[in-house]
Amino acid sequence: MRTQVAIIGAGPAGLLLSHLLEAEGVDSVVVETRSRDYVESRIRAGILEQSTVDLLTDVGLGARLAAEGDRHRGIYLQWPHERQHLDFVDLIGRTVTVYGQTEVQKDLGRARDAAGQPIHYGVTGTALHDLDSEHPYVTFTDAEGTQQRLDADVVVGCDGSFGPSRAAVPEAARQTWQRAYPYSWLGILADVAPSTDELIYAWHPNGFALHSMRSSSVSRFYLQVPPETDAGMWSDGQIWDALAERLGHGEAGWQLTPGPITAKSVLPMHSFVQQPMRYCRLFLAGDAAHIVPPTGAKGLNLAVADVALLAPALVALLRRGDPGPAGAYSATALRRVWRCTHFSWWMTTMLHTGGAGADPFEAQLQLSQLRWVTSSEAGARGLAENYAGLPIGF
Amino acid sequence: MRTQVAIIGAGPAGLLLSHLLEAEGVDSVVVETRSRDYVESRIRAGILEQSTVDLLTDVGLGARLAAEGDRHRGIYLQWPHERQHLDFVDLIGRTVTVYGQTEVQKDLGRARDAAGQPIHYGVTGTALHDLDSEHPYVTFTDAEGTQQRLDADVVVGCDGSFGPSRAAVPEAARQTWQRAYPYSWLGILADVAPSTDELIYAWHPNGFALHSMRSSSVSRFYLQVPPETDAGMWSDGQIWDALAERLGHGEAGWQLTPGPITAKSVLPMHSFVQQPMRYCRLFLAGDAAHIVPPTGAKGLNLAVADVALLAPALVALLRRGDPGPAGAYSATALRRVWRCTHFSWWMTTMLHTGGAGADPFEAQLQLSQLRWVTSSEAGARGLAENYAGLPIGF
Repeated sequence: MRTQVAIIGAGPAGLLLSHLLEAEGVDSVVVETRSRDYVESRIRAGILEQSTVDLLTDVGLGARLAAEGDRHRGIYLQWPHERQHLDFVDLIGRTVTVYGQTEVQKDLGRARDAAGQPIHYGVTGTALHDLDSEHPYVTFTDAEGTQQRLDADVVVGCDGSFGPSRAAVPEAARQTWQRAYPYSWLGILADVAPSTDELIYAWHPNGFALHSMRSSSVSRFYLQVPPETDAGMWSDGQIWDALAERLGHGEAGWQLTPGPITAKSVLPMHSFVQQPMRYCRLFLAGDAAHIVPPTGAKGLNLAVADVALLAPALVALLRRGDPGPAGAYSATALRRVWRCTHFSWWMTTMLHTGGAGADPFEAQLQLSQLRWVTSSEAGARGLAENYAGLPIGF
Repeated sequence: MRTQVAIIGAGPAGLLLSHLLEAEGVDSVVVETRSRDYVESRIRAGILEQSTVDLLTDVGLGARLAAEGDRHRGIYLQWPHERQHLDFVDLIGRTVTVYGQTEVQKDLGRARDAAGQPIHYGVTGTALHDLDSEHPYVTFTDAEGTQQRLDADVVVGCDGSFGPSRAAVPEAARQTWQRAYPYSWLGILADVAPSTDELIYAWHPNGFALHSMRSSSVSRFYLQVPPETDAGMWSDGQIWDALAERLGHGEAGWQLTPGPITAKSVLPMHSFVQQPMRYCRLFLAGDAAHIVPPTGAKGLNLAVADVALLAPALVALLRRGDPGPAGAYSATALRRVWRCTHFSWWMTTMLHTGGAGADPFEAQLQLSQLRWVTSSEAGARGLAENYAGLPIGF
């Protein structure tokens, strides 16, 4: 097989890239180790920045998002006996939209189907070759067990933390930074209407809790738990009790309504950045190049922002022979990556509490920061502009 | 002896308190373990918030400050190859003033002399008694070796970290938080005109550096050094070389002009808060209740803000028999204390680098925070409003 752009990974980054490239007349082939069912049902992010919504809308992917997405003016930040609202619209004139990554994935999948996009799901043994030559290629075994070779002008790694692209950059040509946080999230999906109109981020001595949602009838919750936690150790009753306590059930008349829990899973929390995001004929986008803890809702948005920069850069390179934008891709993308990496670290370390043995001074610093962020206009705008997201191309 | 307010400590907090009380007809006696010469020559802070300047001016202590103080519109923040100016006037309409604590101390000393304020310097064995009764008193041996007893209506501890007041609060009645930072500052005073119009806060892989000043002919510098450093280990040549490197001598035509070094000392960096700031008839103000690392220039300003709240509270209590403001003192003062404690920690941890063995991710977080603070208006305003200082009574 031969294509212009070989895309490794059929998550939102990979499919959006193929969508944007096709609109500008550039061919691509996507290879993905997972099945289509798996990719379309895995539960991931749920908050879209305004620029993500704008981009998806501009490229014809906004119809269901407009109908089913729930636009939020802001978020709540809370700590014991206090809940404060940050109104992003008042602060910076921007909103965020609740729309699950699963839905974005389905919209992308349908659009790629309609365009006849070649996507190979369920492949094994994906390997990248000759990236430092003019003729890179990818080999894999397809779902039918046939060995395949995909020749391309460029290869794009949209294959996340576990794919082969990140490590295909020679060690001497890459720098990485990482941090593992000493806690995880227990993520819960429940068939119950949200007990709040907007997300509640709750600092609590027992640990952070987040009340999010997926739709008017599906709530999403997260509880800070120790990193070695087995989700099965938490009974439904224990989960609702912990959520009620940390989210302040009964405070100022607020009620948390429990319901049937349909999924429980433990999410690790870590930060990772690999740079540069280009090596010769290989480009990295999304989680392949960077991971953020989910507290700032940045992961999916960052992947979309990468692709929004990369697609025109590849069009310039492959259609007009202009290497300028492709040459600038890594440095430009990394500006936003580091901004979001810092913001995600900042939100995470402001809201997660240390449990037994933690430095009690840390808790006081967190509370004074929360009070400042919710009482100073500059503090509130600083959070809002990072959370609601910078314009693409920042 | 008998007075209305027994003040332990003749630093800026103690003398300003006696000054403010006298203006409202409340008597005080001040006791101080150090000599007057020592107190007036010890080198401490040098940056006054606008509300500190306004307060000193309002109470008749502003003449020399107006003539000799140097009003600054902002500060510089820098990291290798980049120096950015934050203009507090543009951002929030406030300024800071360079005027050494030694000068504030002398102005206060002269004003107290003119008023005939009783101040006992060089005392030993200061002890606080019966604080939980209606009749507290202080005992000490005066400079002539005579045992003295000072009866008072209230006792105010303005005696910093090492005085007896902080520990005179029974353990069961106090809570403390503290943190020691894994670095110190080497402070340098040099007889040379400053090489900058405003303070330069410099992040550098070798360690933080700060170019401050005391007057048009005296410069003040600080270098981050390991905590166990002996100031004598640094030769003048080594100091100027380190300052030149960390402050970016030669970058974009900027020159650091060396000169004769007149003082070198090592300053530890720590945070400390004790609360409440009142125990029965004892009130704490300034460093007796809280210590901040000097990075945010908050120590002296926080002491002044405490006293500005405490003086009218004591006047209400002792002249009008109104216990309300004295009852609210601790909680009100602690709001600002925790804001400044957080800000000082934030400035400190943003600017100090870890040396060998440090987490390289930390340095990237610091640099992305510095870039955000100097490029986002919200980020810049957040720093400016904290640095230039909140209004008294916040």
